[in-house]
Amino acid sequence: MNKAVTARAHTNIALIKYWGKKNSELIIPTTSSLSLTLDKFYTDTTVFFDDQLEQDELFLNNTMIKNKALTKTSEFLDLVRQMAGIKAYANITSVNHVPTAAGLASSASGFAALAAASSKAAGLDLNRKDLSRLARRGSGSASRSIFGGFTEWIAGEDDLTSYAHPIQENVTMDIQMLTVVLDGSPKKIGSRQGMQHAIATSPFYDTWVAESAVDLVAMKHAITNNDFQALGELAEHNALQMHSLNFTAKPAFTYFNGDTLNILNLIQDLRHQGIQAYATMDAGPNVKIISQSADTQIISNAIKNNFPSALVEIAKPGPGISYL
Amino acid sequence: MNKAVTARAHTNIALIKYWGKKNSELIIPTTSSLSLTLDKFYTDTTVFFDDQLEQDELFLNNTMIKNKALTKTSEFLDLVRQMAGIKAYANITSVNHVPTAAGLASSASGFAALAAASSKAAGLDLNRKDLSRLARRGSGSASRSIFGGFTEWIAGEDDLTSYAHPIQENVTMDIQMLTVVLDGSPKKIGSRQGMQHAIATSPFYDTWVAESAVDLVAMKHAITNNDFQALGELAEHNALQMHSLNFTAKPAFTYFNGDTLNILNLIQDLRHQGIQAYATMDAGPNVKIISQSADTQIISNAIKNNFPSALVEIAKPGPGISYL
Repeated sequence: MNKAVTARAHTNIALIKYWGKKNSELIIPTTSSLSLTLDKFYTDTTVFFDDQLEQDELFLNNTMIKNKALTKTSEFLDLVRQMAGIKAYANITSVNHVPTAAGLASSASGFAALAAASSKAAGLDLNRKDLSRLARRGSGSASRSIFGGFTEWIAGEDDLTSYAHPIQENVTMDIQMLTVVLDGSPKKIGSRQGMQHAIATSPFYDTWVAESAVDLVAMKHAITNNDFQALGELAEHNALQMHSLNFTAKPAFTYFNGDTLNILNLIQDLRHQGIQAYATMDAGPNVKIISQSADTQIISNAIKNNFPSALVEIAKPGPGISYL
Repeated sequence: MNKAVTARAHTNIALIKYWGKKNSELIIPTTSSLSLTLDKFYTDTTVFFDDQLEQDELFLNNTMIKNKALTKTSEFLDLVRQMAGIKAYANITSVNHVPTAAGLASSASGFAALAAASSKAAGLDLNRKDLSRLARRGSGSASRSIFGGFTEWIAGEDDLTSYAHPIQENVTMDIQMLTVVLDGSPKKIGSRQGMQHAIATSPFYDTWVAESAVDLVAMKHAITNNDFQALGELAEHNALQMHSLNFTAKPAFTYFNGDTLNILNLIQDLRHQGIQAYATMDAGPNVKIISQSADTQIISNAIKNNFPSALVEIAKPGPGISYL
């Protein structure tokens, strides 16, 4: 207590997606998921519990925040205070090295860093499994950002049994994600709202749950066998399935815009030229291109030639949580 | 025999889609479908059987055709010759008032007109049900273009039981389709090839078949009740389901391009402004906007403001087959 703790957590991008909860309060998902933690995008968060404070104080990227992000953070800290048996409010300073709310998973790194920093600042000494369970309560995908490399979030049935664990922290495969940002504006439909609507109304939802379990097994095989092509094909198929749930919701919605489709079609053209490149998309219009280092230049050039305004960043496998 | 017969058939656009066959040779579909025949787009075809000819001759839009369109036409005429007990080859002259192969169903009007003209020229006097069965052998959706207005193609189980019949030939609803053509180039993946790939590889296919039967019942209710909104919502949902089968095929494919998504998002924006507009898409990137006459101007303007190069045409309910 009364000491400042700083933690760093990296974002992760799901190769087998999380898209729906069977318990909204505890954030227990309908499916297990599997992700790759990235080195490029991360959040640094410092937490300091102070008996003098009259409420939690949140500074995000050097700006004091008073909106619903503060409410969500305070509700999360209530869990930590309850676990640690303390009552003090906290000062939270968070610096986000991720474009916020554009489908690049800033909430994953954000809540993972907050879970690590706040629990330690509150005097708790959680192991990584319990940190993952805690991070999950802030944002489902944050459970995976506790670990580096390939990480599985086991859906489980309740708070105790729903957590992430590492599949391969030191990635042996040559794999990277080229993130193509064409639209950095916040998403219109939050992922929480989007996934609940898909569960409730897409006729394909139950099939997706069953198919996702099959994809997950195949994905683990691909990782074990260092089979990049199988991993890429599975990831793209799984992502398109998830987005098809949104296309078939009533009423339909989509995170795609025209450029999302243009980039998907460009990636298909690249594959026809023999370049191994696969797409994955989350709750935003931007595309992450799963690829290998030897193809960086040819893919980047193809993107820049077709989309001069695109911001392309290259992310490699990244580490799990650390304290600074 | 030995007289020239000219028939006119109009295109139809499916509101409940046909996407897959259970018998490829006889063209027996996996699902029943329901369409609206349009006044704007049609094909006029003249057939003349001539003992002097040494092979079938096909003129399409004043150009002599020698490619696979001739082969397909000759194979179709073999069915007619067999039914009529004649051996003569035919001269076929067809004028297509539809942009070919851009998802505007030129094969539907084409084979419906050919079925009507060739059977009569061969001396047959088929009723409309049998004409529909015959047209089906050329192109599944052609079975529906025998009739005007709202038409159902009953999937059936074999050649005898798979045919279209009218649901409401004289349409009472205020309904039109604004066709927005942004890309008139031929589709990359033919619909025959596309649907077979979706059947074989999409995990959602079986659910789609079941869901389509539910949508069809609801669509007939919407027509009976003159409920434009229900019709539009069902049609858009059904179309997006069909295209999701393609997105989830292995490997995935799509008829959409960037502008398809931009127009879908524009239609959603129009709905948020209170305009009743719904989208349907077939085996091409172009969008048909299901709408009502009072909204023609506002929708056309929105399209032209956002897509200056778009060709917008307005099609109303059209009639069934006729002889000229």
